[in-house]
Amino acid sequence: MRFATIRAEDKKVILLDQTALPEKTVYNSYTDYCDMIEAIKRLEVRGAPAIGIAAAYTLALAAETRVDITLDQLRKVMIDVACEVKNARPTAMNLFWGVDRVMAAAQKYNGDSLDEYRHLFWGEADAILEEDKAMCQAIGLHGAGLLPDRCTILTHCNAGALATGGIGTALGVIYTAAEMGKQITVYADETRPLLQGARLTCWELMQNGIDVTLITDSMAGYLMSLAKIDAVIVGADRITNNGDVANKIGTYSLAVLAGVHNIPFYVAAPASTFDLKMDHGLEIPIEQRRAEEVTCGFGKRTAPEGVKVFNPAFDMTPHELVSAYITDTGVRPGGRK
Amino acid sequence: MRFATIRAEDKKVILLDQTALPEKTVYNSYTDYCDMIEAIKRLEVRGAPAIGIAAAYTLALAAETRVDITLDQLRKVMIDVACEVKNARPTAMNLFWGVDRVMAAAQKYNGDSLDEYRHLFWGEADAILEEDKAMCQAIGLHGAGLLPDRCTILTHCNAGALATGGIGTALGVIYTAAEMGKQITVYADETRPLLQGARLTCWELMQNGIDVTLITDSMAGYLMSLAKIDAVIVGADRITNNGDVANKIGTYSLAVLAGVHNIPFYVAAPASTFDLKMDHGLEIPIEQRRAEEVTCGFGKRTAPEGVKVFNPAFDMTPHELVSAYITDTGVRPGGRK
Repeated sequence: MRFATIRAEDKKVILLDQTALPEKTVYNSYTDYCDMIEAIKRLEVRGAPAIGIAAAYTLALAAETRVDITLDQLRKVMIDVACEVKNARPTAMNLFWGVDRVMAAAQKYNGDSLDEYRHLFWGEADAILEEDKAMCQAIGLHGAGLLPDRCTILTHCNAGALATGGIGTALGVIYTAAEMGKQITVYADETRPLLQGARLTCWELMQNGIDVTLITDSMAGYLMSLAKIDAVIVGADRITNNGDVANKIGTYSLAVLAGVHNIPFYVAAPASTFDLKMDHGLEIPIEQRRAEEVTCGFGKRTAPEGVKVFNPAFDMTPHELVSAYITDTGVRPGGRK
Repeated sequence: MRFATIRAEDKKVILLDQTALPEKTVYNSYTDYCDMIEAIKRLEVRGAPAIGIAAAYTLALAAETRVDITLDQLRKVMIDVACEVKNARPTAMNLFWGVDRVMAAAQKYNGDSLDEYRHLFWGEADAILEEDKAMCQAIGLHGAGLLPDRCTILTHCNAGALATGGIGTALGVIYTAAEMGKQITVYADETRPLLQGARLTCWELMQNGIDVTLITDSMAGYLMSLAKIDAVIVGADRITNNGDVANKIGTYSLAVLAGVHNIPFYVAAPASTFDLKMDHGLEIPIEQRRAEEVTCGFGKRTAPEGVKVFNPAFDMTPHELVSAYITDTGVRPGGRK
């Protein structure tokens, strides 16, 4: 990987500023946890796993900030800080998860050293990052085995290194296959409205020397009809017990088109993405987002003032359209015959 | 219709400037044929039928321009002008057709009056405009009969009044059904890369009081899965003998998705769109367009410098996916079972 989305060094946290991509590669260094919260809010770091890691490191920075303080006082302060971090992005599950995990580890500390207590935060945040890297590697290895020696992959949105602490999920499969010596070429959907495919997926694949071609979302079906696509690999935001997948809007159409063209459709995601409390995808709430993302997405108004807009952030792909789930614990068969 | 895309009045041609939509409604008045050619070049008027009409009126303006001239001299000048107009947009079939039709009419003139000769150009251009209006009305009537009394239509790109001299083809069906008292609501694909759906279709439907909701192209399949779409209606750039359809990129995906969801897929186009010289769609050449339409379509760079781009302007929908063709001469059954 030619860049690190998030890393820590000498009690600083260094983020690759994703709001500046693809035009500029800017790394911002943070020592103040309030600045980190602002960075999370303005999407300098995004992607569920990466946000979880960022949340953990934000707590570690906060624990360092107060100097003239007793251990007991710091313990109380950190409870407030935890709330603050959770409020950075109210719907990001991994943000809550990252905060809760680090706080649980800190609460178990029963020594009396401020330094040791502070060190705990860094240690737990580092552990989350390392586990995320290992998770990506495992997904990569399991997925790469599914791909033939020469193939062209279509992907959607960004389920890559920029969304994780490691090599990514869907793109992790591609990186691993390429490293094994397989000849992988990629088509990337631009992924309207927020263009994560154009801005982020193309950037990171190019950085890592993977042959990538950008298309608009409407071109995927036509490419399949031309027999140019050997497999589709996407990430997932949530997978229900029966295997239904919530992922970036447009995923469902790709799954239908892949099925009609007899092209394998793979979902790459950590086993933790499976929500065992939900039986099927119809229960997944679908977030509706602001009209302006569609009507003036890039600083220019492209639709009439006052037009009605339907802007779901995700859609639901039924398990019958999934060929297989590529997880860190192995490949699970999907419901597609 | 609350606006006129192109009309002539007192030897002036008045164009609705489509490059200013949807932000501003600007009508430009032309008396100089060179200015009209520039207007065609900069896409102030677009859409195959509208370009044909514009070409015809451009010749009429040119015939007026030269004052101190004999009839014989003007006849020669007009041959050069015809070439000039044809060069405005080299791939627009209707441009050539409009020029050839007006020139053929003029060549038949065997009188000796300059005024009568000039009048011939206006007369033939007016005839083309009127025939286009009648064609749209006929498509509208034939198509409206296919729609239930309450229904929601999905359309793609702009096959509307802005692309013709009349009420449009695909949108003509919608206007006519609404005028009959049917309750029609519309979802409009934004139609990347050039956003004709967002910029033009939404604008003209709103102008005419039709309930329209804008979506990104990737949302169409999800809407179908929610049972929100009763029919898809699109236009066509060319239809081959066997019924295969070349139309704006993204049409093929919609046709596949409509088929899977058992939603009627209609193609609305004049009978003249059928290219009797071509047997099937694989013969249709597909124009590849500039990468910048995808990488910096909104006035802002949204993909990395140097990224490869696949940008076909059209795709090909096989006749097996078409429920019916709505033409000015009647409804023809498609190949979908």
